[in-house]
Amino acid sequence: MTTIDPERTGCPLPRADTERVLLGHGSGGQLTAELIDRVILAELGGGEPLEDAAILETPGTPLVFSTDSFVVTPRFFPGGDIGALAVHGTVNDLAMRGARPIALALAYVLEEGLPVAELRAVTASVAASATACGIRVVTGDTKVVGRGAADGMYITTTGIGALLPGAAPSAARGRPGDAVLVSGPVGAHGTAVLCARGDLGFEADIHSDTQPLHELTAAMVAACGPDIHALRDPTRGGLAGALNELATASGIGIHLEESAVPVPGPVASACDLLGLDPLHVANEGCLVALVAAESADAALTAVRSVSAGARARLIGHATDGPAGRVVARTPLGASRVVDMLVGEQLPRIC
Amino acid sequence: MTTIDPERTGCPLPRADTERVLLGHGSGGQLTAELIDRVILAELGGGEPLEDAAILETPGTPLVFSTDSFVVTPRFFPGGDIGALAVHGTVNDLAMRGARPIALALAYVLEEGLPVAELRAVTASVAASATACGIRVVTGDTKVVGRGAADGMYITTTGIGALLPGAAPSAARGRPGDAVLVSGPVGAHGTAVLCARGDLGFEADIHSDTQPLHELTAAMVAACGPDIHALRDPTRGGLAGALNELATASGIGIHLEESAVPVPGPVASACDLLGLDPLHVANEGCLVALVAAESADAALTAVRSVSAGARARLIGHATDGPAGRVVARTPLGASRVVDMLVGEQLPRIC
Repeated sequence: MTTIDPERTGCPLPRADTERVLLGHGSGGQLTAELIDRVILAELGGGEPLEDAAILETPGTPLVFSTDSFVVTPRFFPGGDIGALAVHGTVNDLAMRGARPIALALAYVLEEGLPVAELRAVTASVAASATACGIRVVTGDTKVVGRGAADGMYITTTGIGALLPGAAPSAARGRPGDAVLVSGPVGAHGTAVLCARGDLGFEADIHSDTQPLHELTAAMVAACGPDIHALRDPTRGGLAGALNELATASGIGIHLEESAVPVPGPVASACDLLGLDPLHVANEGCLVALVAAESADAALTAVRSVSAGARARLIGHATDGPAGRVVARTPLGASRVVDMLVGEQLPRIC
Repeated sequence: MTTIDPERTGCPLPRADTERVLLGHGSGGQLTAELIDRVILAELGGGEPLEDAAILETPGTPLVFSTDSFVVTPRFFPGGDIGALAVHGTVNDLAMRGARPIALALAYVLEEGLPVAELRAVTASVAASATACGIRVVTGDTKVVGRGAADGMYITTTGIGALLPGAAPSAARGRPGDAVLVSGPVGAHGTAVLCARGDLGFEADIHSDTQPLHELTAAMVAACGPDIHALRDPTRGGLAGALNELATASGIGIHLEESAVPVPGPVASACDLLGLDPLHVANEGCLVALVAAESADAALTAVRSVSAGARARLIGHATDGPAGRVVARTPLGASRVVDMLVGEQLPRIC
């Protein structure tokens, strides 16, 4: 794992010309945040972070706009494939801003030599997933690069959504006292992909949780409106990463009851064998929400009314600080700080 | 160059499981069209082609939506770089549907080991190009893949635009008698990139023409409204590809006066040395338009009023057929059919 020299915490990216992009810059953890802040946002000249989705104020309904590239390996894994992931990932980014998806754009970068049968299968999966979400691929692009200039295929999907009436979730709207809700078990996607790579020396019956979450967020918004303060799908960086981001953006602390976090048995076993913390493992079919305390029960009922959220749970609450600090009470009653990953745990997980 | 067995014209993509993606599938020529039609659109279940940009009927102003991946090599070339290209390419796809650009999404796939200085320079170029177009990058994504799993960096940009009042350009709206207009000299981008690769054995002072075209199309629409029948930026596949696509989509023929097509001297010389037809070479800063004959002069005046179109010319007219056939009168007075490329002429040109 990449480590950051504590002497240089204030300036973790060296300025020398020899500095290079590391795998850890794609982890969704601290290094990613730093690359984005110190290089990409610095050059784009925007003070505000690029949220997972942007809200565009247009005449009529405000629109939500989100893009994501998918580089997962292997392309097919138990429970899904890169095509389904590319649709769900972008639909979910829209949903996390409180939007109903409207349309999808699809861009392929293909490596010369990719079996056309694979392209066909992935595209069929894109189509089936989009149809299941009630949207269509309306525009696209296909580029081909030579052998060795990509690993099979990469997909970028971009979605447009319409903001749901009453929806106002934002990473910065969490408040002390908010209930913390997770819509389902965590850790399945990352461990499923890792197992599918076949180089672990053991097999596990774990399926990715990849699924769309827009119906779930629509149910929450319908039930609780603006009391749904913040939504985040804990993909790269896992639940720990999502909670840290929310705590930081909202300037709150988060208290997590670790024993309340649903981790399926096979996922827990695999993580144990691999030395992974399930809280750091990527998910593609659950969300974490900060909800006004008085609406927590209504939100939980709404989430559980949708099949994707049947196993939702309250897992903690927001505190007044320290800002950005996530503390878990362990099953043994001790407290531990739940950090973001610094670098890369599982490259190319989505 | 890849060739297609004429015996199998009706089914140019073999169905066998051994079939693989070829570099030529990314050419923007016939193979690209076939891969998109027979694999991607077939699986997406859409009868209609994925246009370069889609129009979304939303409450209020109709929106235009377009996505493009950029894989050009080298990333820096005379006249531009992959960042500028990524902004201009998507802005221009919006402009070709008659839209004013509103917002941009930016997705990076980075190869581990990419110098951060390059990422910084490319991002600065994205920012400068977007600012020059009057838009902002509002959302984004960054993925990192291991060494050897990409060639430095790939960029996918997706744009949203608002349809200009009175604008109705569509590849299918060309009519016999329409004037064919090109907004500037052709062939510069492709030859500039090829020369920048440095393996040609000669040097040429050719700069890419990469530039945004939305002000130019806005001037045309303001002057001629729906008389601007069709717009296309002749990128991959060059002017020949764009004219063939328009002729096919509109069910018309096109007569081209080859001597009227502006080809800069250094581009003509380089193409001569390389055995390329300038009509097949990619452009990133000009457009071709089909305009109602009675509005041809007004359109030409409008285009020339914008600096990007100062050297615009009328280069031919649409005929009643044969549908899809582009015929050029050569400088010597002979006629030749101007075909689309079948496979790949210059891989990774954009």
